[in-house]
Amino acid sequence: MTFDAMWSVIAPIGLEASTRGYRRFAWTRQDALLREWFVGEASARGLDLVTDRAGNQWAWWGDPDAAVAAGRPGVVIGSHLDSVPDGGAFDGPLGVVSALAVVDALRAKGFVPARPIAVVNFVDEEGARFGIACAGSRLITGKLDAGKARGLRDADGVTMAEAMTAAGHAVEHVGPDEEALRRIGTFVELHVEQGRALVDLGRAVAVGSVIWPHGRWRIDLDGEANHAGTTRLEDRRDPMLALAAAVLAARAAATVNGCVATVGKVRVEPNGVNAIPSRVTAWLDARGPDEARVRAVVEGVGAQSSGLPVEESWTPETVFDMPLARRLSDVLDGAPMLSTGAGHDAGVLATAGLSTAMLFVRNPTGISHSPAEFAERKDCHSGVGALAAVTEDLAR
Amino acid sequence: MTFDAMWSVIAPIGLEASTRGYRRFAWTRQDALLREWFVGEASARGLDLVTDRAGNQWAWWGDPDAAVAAGRPGVVIGSHLDSVPDGGAFDGPLGVVSALAVVDALRAKGFVPARPIAVVNFVDEEGARFGIACAGSRLITGKLDAGKARGLRDADGVTMAEAMTAAGHAVEHVGPDEEALRRIGTFVELHVEQGRALVDLGRAVAVGSVIWPHGRWRIDLDGEANHAGTTRLEDRRDPMLALAAAVLAARAAATVNGCVATVGKVRVEPNGVNAIPSRVTAWLDARGPDEARVRAVVEGVGAQSSGLPVEESWTPETVFDMPLARRLSDVLDGAPMLSTGAGHDAGVLATAGLSTAMLFVRNPTGISHSPAEFAERKDCHSGVGALAAVTEDLAR
Repeated sequence: MTFDAMWSVIAPIGLEASTRGYRRFAWTRQDALLREWFVGEASARGLDLVTDRAGNQWAWWGDPDAAVAAGRPGVVIGSHLDSVPDGGAFDGPLGVVSALAVVDALRAKGFVPARPIAVVNFVDEEGARFGIACAGSRLITGKLDAGKARGLRDADGVTMAEAMTAAGHAVEHVGPDEEALRRIGTFVELHVEQGRALVDLGRAVAVGSVIWPHGRWRIDLDGEANHAGTTRLEDRRDPMLALAAAVLAARAAATVNGCVATVGKVRVEPNGVNAIPSRVTAWLDARGPDEARVRAVVEGVGAQSSGLPVEESWTPETVFDMPLARRLSDVLDGAPMLSTGAGHDAGVLATAGLSTAMLFVRNPTGISHSPAEFAERKDCHSGVGALAAVTEDLAR
Repeated sequence: MTFDAMWSVIAPIGLEASTRGYRRFAWTRQDALLREWFVGEASARGLDLVTDRAGNQWAWWGDPDAAVAAGRPGVVIGSHLDSVPDGGAFDGPLGVVSALAVVDALRAKGFVPARPIAVVNFVDEEGARFGIACAGSRLITGKLDAGKARGLRDADGVTMAEAMTAAGHAVEHVGPDEEALRRIGTFVELHVEQGRALVDLGRAVAVGSVIWPHGRWRIDLDGEANHAGTTRLEDRRDPMLALAAAVLAARAAATVNGCVATVGKVRVEPNGVNAIPSRVTAWLDARGPDEARVRAVVEGVGAQSSGLPVEESWTPETVFDMPLARRLSDVLDGAPMLSTGAGHDAGVLATAGLSTAMLFVRNPTGISHSPAEFAERKDCHSGVGALAAVTEDLAR
């Protein structure tokens, strides 16, 4: 089945009519449909399907264990099939469908790989249901504790263990999976671009260089609950004003430091129309090209705010395998190198010491995690061609 | 029972240990306890208890209908016993307990009223449960449609009709109550002050002059959902920045125009830490000494904001009976006249054409609708004395 045909088959799965966005959350019925489709595509190509301890699916062309024994572990390509709430069609599926199309393209030209090749579908990359991104890759690398993962609950109170069990996955085996990891000689994840750099560069495909360091901070802005109609302005301690200051400070500090900063989540108490709030809590997401700059953004916000930012998470810079990235760029006629502010399974595996790389396919809207996310079909085909060239080079 | 004793008896009812605030919502178990206490206090004083069609309780000293027939309808004093969520002890109960103490004080000095006197407990003044403030007085004056009221739902989906029925009130009779209204010659509501004017004036009691015109506006701030990590600052349409601008504009416009303005309620969509919001909705509460100034505040916010304020409610200025207010001030040795930004049952009755007045008792914190709301005990006693003097003057 061609790229276009595969794309059409999965297009309706998890599509929400009211928003035109996708709701493909881990271990749901929609996810099960996508996983069954993946099994079918692997089977149609005679690939050997292996599901690892976390539930990630690997479709092997060639014997991965013989290759490990020979000291030439495989070339893995792919991405994920789940989505954020009301996400777009491309984030994840573009990488999986392209990888399957690469197998077809290499076979069509008679290529005989010297290393086995796998197409992977990582489970629960977005963390939309249980709140932890890249759960599948974090579990097999031990970066997410299996016991903690099993106990995570979704918005309905269902644990990940219950959701896995309901979907037929053997939850007692969840945990680090050395066998799955040692089969990976190189992992290349193709992904739709999440910004507009390629539009400006006039190129269809780029190679990933680094994932920016990023973190999340909570800012508690305390005020004094009072009556909105009877309290003089000079007697108020209104934390909504502090929120306004923090939001503007975040934007200013990000601009000055060449970073991005976002206040995307806010909680107001008691959140009544005629009540001066007693407290506003804001969450700050900040990312940038290096840790010092990101820290400078957070300090800038703290200096302009009545509440000190409290760190809730921090992820250092992830540098992909740079010789590998340069090799990919050379194979792709000098494809540009792009850094990104988003996390990926490729980043998790890189942090675990594996050789990984990413390819980005041009997104003319620059929008991500939204139905407006897009890639022209010819750019998708260019992505398949680029991934095929890279895979051929690596598996030769 | 003395003021102090009555105050102690009701102090525990509806007190939430975790917040030290009161949760006394209409037609709940806590409300029923307070209503039973009120019946008991009326009975102990030999007052005749009448419950009107909306559920407001009237305890009459003397025959109100004979007085109506004689063209000398009664003097009503009182307030309400319900609270906002986690409200203070004084807002409402101070007026009811003081009114009962006034009956005792007048009797103790052998006063024989020429008009009947009633103590009233208005039901559901705060609107905390069903969202409509002053529901009891609005229902009997026809300003709140009975059918609409019966269908209002609380946060658990219980209708006001169901809540009334469960509390034993005959819901089929709910509606305008001419009989209750024509018994009111004058209504004087004593209330804890909701600002700090009396502290500055060095007085314990003031007389109400006007309730400021006030309104509520919704501001829809549209943006573009996008990834917080990958979207360049210059590519963003982030409505959180628009919220910051609106909050600051509201404060600035209120300051310039001598009004108060509050953004106390905000809704962020999708409200995710790593998502630029697609939309932020803010609610603006604005009040001031005249309509033109309040409108200027709202226009000021609209001019600085990417979303136009949409009016959700508007209440014109309420002027209390000014000859009556001056008479009260004279009786009280030139008590100062204060305007207020808060709505009250006395305001609803004034708008319905009844002669009403208010007394305010000093609140050293200036805080309202919060456990920090306060009145010194000696000021409460001064309030009882003032209300007794006023009642004696009116019922002589």
